[in-house]
Amino acid sequence: MGKPTPELSLPPALVAKAVADALAEDLGLAGDITTRATVGPDTRASASLGARKPGVVAGLQPFEAAFRTLDPNVAIEIAIPDGSRVEAGAEIARISGNARALLTAERVALNFVGHMSGIATLTRAFVDKIASTNAHIIDTRKTTPGLRAFEKLAVRAGGGSNHRFGLFDAILIKDNHIIAAGGVGPAMQRARTLAGHMVKIEIEVTSLAELDEAMAHAPDAVLLDNMDTKTLKAAVGIVAKRALIEASGGVNLDTVRAIAETGVDLISVGALTHSAPTLDVGLDFAPTS
Amino acid sequence: MGKPTPELSLPPALVAKAVADALAEDLGLAGDITTRATVGPDTRASASLGARKPGVVAGLQPFEAAFRTLDPNVAIEIAIPDGSRVEAGAEIARISGNARALLTAERVALNFVGHMSGIATLTRAFVDKIASTNAHIIDTRKTTPGLRAFEKLAVRAGGGSNHRFGLFDAILIKDNHIIAAGGVGPAMQRARTLAGHMVKIEIEVTSLAELDEAMAHAPDAVLLDNMDTKTLKAAVGIVAKRALIEASGGVNLDTVRAIAETGVDLISVGALTHSAPTLDVGLDFAPTS
Amino acid sequence: MGKPTPELSLPPALVAKAVADALAEDLGLAGDITTRATVGPDTRASASLGARKPGVVAGLQPFEAAFRTLDPNVAIEIAIPDGSRVEAGAEIARISGNARALLTAERVALNFVGHMSGIATLTRAFVDKIASTNAHIIDTRKTTPGLRAFEKLAVRAGGGSNHRFGLFDAILIKDNHIIAAGGVGPAMQRARTLAGHMVKIEIEVTSLAELDEAMAHAPDAVLLDNMDTKTLKAAVGIVAKRALIEASGGVNLDTVRAIAETGVDLISVGALTHSAPTLDVGLDFAPTS
Amino acid sequence: MGKPTPELSLPPALVAKAVADALAEDLGLAGDITTRATVGPDTRASASLGARKPGVVAGLQPFEAAFRTLDPNVAIEIAIPDGSRVEAGAEIARISGNARALLTAERVALNFVGHMSGIATLTRAFVDKIASTNAHIIDTRKTTPGLRAFEKLAVRAGGGSNHRFGLFDAILIKDNHIIAAGGVGPAMQRARTLAGHMVKIEIEVTSLAELDEAMAHAPDAVLLDNMDTKTLKAAVGIVAKRALIEASGGVNLDTVRAIAETGVDLISVGALTHSAPTLDVGLDFAPTS
Amino acid sequence: MGKPTPELSLPPALVAKAVADALAEDLGLAGDITTRATVGPDTRASASLGARKPGVVAGLQPFEAAFRTLDPNVAIEIAIPDGSRVEAGAEIARISGNARALLTAERVALNFVGHMSGIATLTRAFVDKIASTNAHIIDTRKTTPGLRAFEKLAVRAGGGSNHRFGLFDAILIKDNHIIAAGGVGPAMQRARTLAGHMVKIEIEVTSLAELDEAMAHAPDAVLLDNMDTKTLKAAVGIVAKRALIEASGGVNLDTVRAIAETGVDLISVGALTHSAPTLDVGLDFAPTS
Amino acid sequence: MGKPTPELSLPPALVAKAVADALAEDLGLAGDITTRATVGPDTRASASLGARKPGVVAGLQPFEAAFRTLDPNVAIEIAIPDGSRVEAGAEIARISGNARALLTAERVALNFVGHMSGIATLTRAFVDKIASTNAHIIDTRKTTPGLRAFEKLAVRAGGGSNHRFGLFDAILIKDNHIIAAGGVGPAMQRARTLAGHMVKIEIEVTSLAELDEAMAHAPDAVLLDNMDTKTLKAAVGIVAKRALIEASGGVNLDTVRAIAETGVDLISVGALTHSAPTLDVGLDFAPTS
Repeated sequence: MGKPTPELSLPPALVAKAVADALAEDLGLAGDITTRATVGPDTRASASLGARKPGVVAGLQPFEAAFRTLDPNVAIEIAIPDGSRVEAGAEIARISGNARALLTAERVALNFVGHMSGIATLTRAFVDKIASTNAHIIDTRKTTPGLRAFEKLAVRAGGGSNHRFGLFDAILIKDNHIIAAGGVGPAMQRARTLAGHMVKIEIEVTSLAELDEAMAHAPDAVLLDNMDTKTLKAAVGIVAKRALIEASGGVNLDTVRAIAETGVDLISVGALTHSAPTLDVGLDFAPTS
Repeated sequence: MGKPTPELSLPPALVAKAVADALAEDLGLAGDITTRATVGPDTRASASLGARKPGVVAGLQPFEAAFRTLDPNVAIEIAIPDGSRVEAGAEIARISGNARALLTAERVALNFVGHMSGIATLTRAFVDKIASTNAHIIDTRKTTPGLRAFEKLAVRAGGGSNHRFGLFDAILIKDNHIIAAGGVGPAMQRARTLAGHMVKIEIEVTSLAELDEAMAHAPDAVLLDNMDTKTLKAAVGIVAKRALIEASGGVNLDTVRAIAETGVDLISVGALTHSAPTLDVGLDFAPTS
Repeated sequence: MGKPTPELSLPPALVAKAVADALAEDLGLAGDITTRATVGPDTRASASLGARKPGVVAGLQPFEAAFRTLDPNVAIEIAIPDGSRVEAGAEIARISGNARALLTAERVALNFVGHMSGIATLTRAFVDKIASTNAHIIDTRKTTPGLRAFEKLAVRAGGGSNHRFGLFDAILIKDNHIIAAGGVGPAMQRARTLAGHMVKIEIEVTSLAELDEAMAHAPDAVLLDNMDTKTLKAAVGIVAKRALIEASGGVNLDTVRAIAETGVDLISVGALTHSAPTLDVGLDFAPTS
Repeated sequence: MGKPTPELSLPPALVAKAVADALAEDLGLAGDITTRATVGPDTRASASLGARKPGVVAGLQPFEAAFRTLDPNVAIEIAIPDGSRVEAGAEIARISGNARALLTAERVALNFVGHMSGIATLTRAFVDKIASTNAHIIDTRKTTPGLRAFEKLAVRAGGGSNHRFGLFDAILIKDNHIIAAGGVGPAMQRARTLAGHMVKIEIEVTSLAELDEAMAHAPDAVLLDNMDTKTLKAAVGIVAKRALIEASGGVNLDTVRAIAETGVDLISVGALTHSAPTLDVGLDFAPTS
Repeated sequence: MGKPTPELSLPPALVAKAVADALAEDLGLAGDITTRATVGPDTRASASLGARKPGVVAGLQPFEAAFRTLDPNVAIEIAIPDGSRVEAGAEIARISGNARALLTAERVALNFVGHMSGIATLTRAFVDKIASTNAHIIDTRKTTPGLRAFEKLAVRAGGGSNHRFGLFDAILIKDNHIIAAGGVGPAMQRARTLAGHMVKIEIEVTSLAELDEAMAHAPDAVLLDNMDTKTLKAAVGIVAKRALIEASGGVNLDTVRAIAETGVDLISVGALTHSAPTLDVGLDFAPTS
Repeated sequence: MGKPTPELSLPPALVAKAVADALAEDLGLAGDITTRATVGPDTRASASLGARKPGVVAGLQPFEAAFRTLDPNVAIEIAIPDGSRVEAGAEIARISGNARALLTAERVALNFVGHMSGIATLTRAFVDKIASTNAHIIDTRKTTPGLRAFEKLAVRAGGGSNHRFGLFDAILIKDNHIIAAGGVGPAMQRARTLAGHMVKIEIEVTSLAELDEAMAHAPDAVLLDNMDTKTLKAAVGIVAKRALIEASGGVNLDTVRAIAETGVDLISVGALTHSAPTLDVGLDFAPTS
């Protein structure tokens, strides 16, 4: 079982809003008509969150928030926190409170945990593949609309690192920017002039020649997209630690180690956030006293 | 190439809000600092949305909205509408407008199309597997928080049908509800008393004996979870068209046809919305005049 | 005094939002300038919610929320819950807490209870009129903008049932839809193809001939608008329990029993939600210790 | 036909929000499933808004906004504007645009017009009853939660005047405030000290003795609740134009004229906004070309 | 040290929203990455809010709300409440709670207190200058967008009074209105006809001749902009207590007393809210046990 | 007159929201009752935005949005764009459209321009003071709640640069973080481990000894608060271009040049955003045809 990383928390207002939106989707105007018809308003229940498959846990913050939104007095005990591995069949958390609240919030709570744990689990698979290299697995902006903060936390829970959070917190100059600016040099210069002193600059290059040109402008990082490992190795030599090197494109569990072994610093994987299957988790209700 | 179904549209306010939220995520307070630094405010551009892999298109409504939010005068031509198949390399749509707007909205627009087309593509794979049976592929409430309407449209785009949209528009009595109500009979009775006349009632049964008991109360549908095909066939005989039969659990592309051939009416597949990989789509910018 | 029905509760977020909006309307930027000027910040008070006229109570959930929003520690005891009859002069509830909070939230709280109890009271009058027939009184979508969930709960509190909650949870094919689709048959077919399996279909008919045509397509319900009782009886014979029959139009407290006695299943009354006068309720403050 | 008063307009953002909320209520996640199934996406239609009963029109601003929200290019011609009388059967407005947009927004649009016109019509009945007296009919804060601005505009459309809009824009000292402040004098003094120079002060009195006491503090207005006409006349004499006199309580169409003839300045009627029945209006679709 | 005025409180929802918006600005999607990296999740801390310069305190309500939003169990003791003077170096309040919450909310909390106390301090300086005259210092609508209620409270905290809160709660007829209406007389008449009985009317005049004309229509107040003290004195004579006189324009700490001594009732100062420098306040963390 | 920098634009949704909030503050429920009473609904007007004092322009984006929100067809011509100097008496922009819209939005529009131009003007004063040194003037997080993006744009308009936008886009380790982490070394290490590769790290030091310690961990920048120029010069020597040096504390127009001449890279000035007086701007209406 992995040790949880202490910094896995989201701004509370983000969690509250996402959970409220998800509950609103599920409750509409009429609410949970099944539960209201069949379960008494004061019945109490407890339930166990379990993994049906092995993986890495993420999403317990919105999981708890979903229940707490409907029953502020819900009690929760977490056995396996965000960022830790879970075996199939293991209990992740135990929750007790008003039975209606638990049944009504169940699906929303599970949707968060399943989705985020799925991302953490896939990230961990990539991270494990490149163990003992110097490379890091990072995410991209290819996230599910509305859930970027949640998905980027899940990547960290899986042992990955975060690329920039959006268009606002770092500069990443791509081909169309270079064309519009009139070349690598002008693009780098304009970026440096306009960026605040706390903003890093990364630039995408499509060839070793372009890499040379870019390095003359001292970027913080360079992005090499869809290059073979031989070219990547050459790039590592050219850059010579003067900037971070990010490799992307064609990265999967079969190819990632070879890419890491070229000596690049960062390997970005869009699939972490756009194609991770859910982790199969479920809520088992205990017989109520 | 498939024929688009005409009813694939979302309430405009839902699209506007989801797109605004996604753009807000990506723009933060500072906006697209790379594009602002490198591209002139009045530059124009055009770009082509293309599929890198074959699939089924979905999500062109939020795709267009993302660009239009930043440039109300953007022009878009759709070659392959939602619900149609696309080959690898084919152009789905062409868009032109302010270059900054196109570059800044690109990722948000692609994230919607990739995610929704991924769902449509996986749905279509299931639907094709059960061709010429009487069964329908349906979705579940295992959706990504905040995107249920979008994902359920994508399921329809792939040829699937929608289960209930939430807890509010149909009654689905599960094991915990039955226990709380004191049995199948009381649960069905309470549900019928409280449900409006336009609300259907489905009940989950865990055995053929329970199915018998449930049928005595004339549900609109019965849910059989994780039963083998032999039991499903027996259930089909018992129900004898008096209710719709939904099968769920253990459904994948290898097992779905056998399940359909038992004669069940509906096969629900959580993976459609919780585990579909993205469809690889991209935006190629044309050289600007 | 009636027995409260246990399912009379609204999704908490709906209540919180409607109450917050109503308080915002009343408080603006400056707040309750009268109370702030005349009542000390730490004064405590208690008050009694009473009915000035007999009726049926509804709206205690937003009533309580209005006070609790301004004083989280308010205490409330409910003597006559939602769905119960109240005599003129009887105490419905008693509330105590911070005096400023009570005075400031008073009007908002009363506006909810008066409006919702008015609807419950009028509904109950209709329901009582058709006692011992097989018909049910149902509401319509003719609700006050923004308050549909509240008004539909009030109808249930008065012993009525809810028609669909919106355009999204059931299909109701009216004359213009039939014309656009090219007739009753095509309209029913297109509706059935596109509706999910949990969605019921109702169709409006304007004559017995159209009723015949509609019944050939097995709708879940038929709507007969503005027909005389003789025609309604004939319709009951034609339908012969194969579908639910809803009668509407020209329904008032004088005519409703005759309509019910035709054998129709449902009588929809727009006036329940668009023309019910308020129930006169008031808050009497007790001398403070 | 009455002359429209030019100032009957609402802040556009209020209208946009209320209409958006009402449409969201009606559309949910799935939208108008009936219209989408039966009406083509490009069909056009036109329709006529007519009154089934005579009354006074109000609410055309949200009426138009409802359609325009779904079809920005809708065309509308107004025959009888807000504030004007309409005969039964007369056309109030004509609208044309996308057929789906018209059918989907119809109910929301009518709910606004029916509700607001109902208030305007009832207000006009009160106003007409006191013709040629010096009194004015005014509204109260007994409004439907969320719709105060709309209902107060409807009162003006009916020829009435508005009392304060909320707790924030004027001071109205009632019995509990007087008790808390330690009497009429201290309450008036504290109010005057704390109120800005543009804020008027009204005080409720329960007897002629209290009226005398209040007048010593020069209020802008005095409120006399539930007093008989003889007492009201005496009060008019005591006040002698030094303040406005508002009468309230027990006001209905039978009693209002006698109250007005006592010489009071203002008669407030809660029923205008809490008990006005809807004005029966409908939308008749024209055959489409 | 001044005595706090008991009415210095804001509607809680306004405070909650402004604080939530300010925290959202500061936290974005990623949150406080510095604190999360360096401070344990369960560390506790306490801190002292102190003034670096003398002034008048305002803003403790949002100050507390900022911390409480992140740690509902934070404890706060207020030594110097809103509306009181504080010496340089004095402790205003002491707060203790979760260390992360305190560090993360610190800047938002201080921004509110600094800004609002700056306004209160400047207001107090003006108020002190005109001590023992009959004039009052009042604010304007020249406020910072989004913070009007906060800034107007700060003015009251500094001993000033509030002009109208917006365009909605009082009528102020300016030159362009007079021109559009066709003169002072028509403008006053139209205003009086349309204003509710609780709405005061003020009119701006540009000369003593115009003042004469305006007084014929009995306004509640007159505004004299940019007049010299001799003209102001003449105006005081003309008005002769029949209306309040507001002077504005060219008001600063050097000129305000002479203006007050002309006998005007009100002196409005835009600088109170648009140009007050912050009051220098800081948070000193205590060593944690 | 300065040349405008092309990158002075804000995300449109931020502008729309801030303007909508400001208009809502000013309009409340009743709207602009003065203008509605005195100006016809179809009157047209044009007006000139002028500076009463010299300064630097900022805020024309929200200025235009305020008018356009109320009249989508408003026409605006900008003579002096954001980032340019304006002389007293010069015309900044000219606007024409519906007269009611112009009068109603005037104050909100001016409040944005005055506030933002005030910040730009003060920033420019600091920037001019350090002309031909290598230092840059930067802002802080001491911004007005809710307006950070607007104020940081105004700083850029004045020739300054932006520090981080919030707690989320860069790491700034201060004294309390160092204490909590157990020293400069552990704090730097934990920060580097947790920060993404695009996140820069700055650390505050309180002495040259601490500076030495910090430099051993290769921060991107160091913050020296309240140090005298002699110490700053020594720090410049120690750092020797290995990191950026930010000086803060005690910075004003008299001291800033001496600080810049020490060789520091960055001088942060809280007063730019928390204490800049408004730039006096006004709208002069032209006689209407």
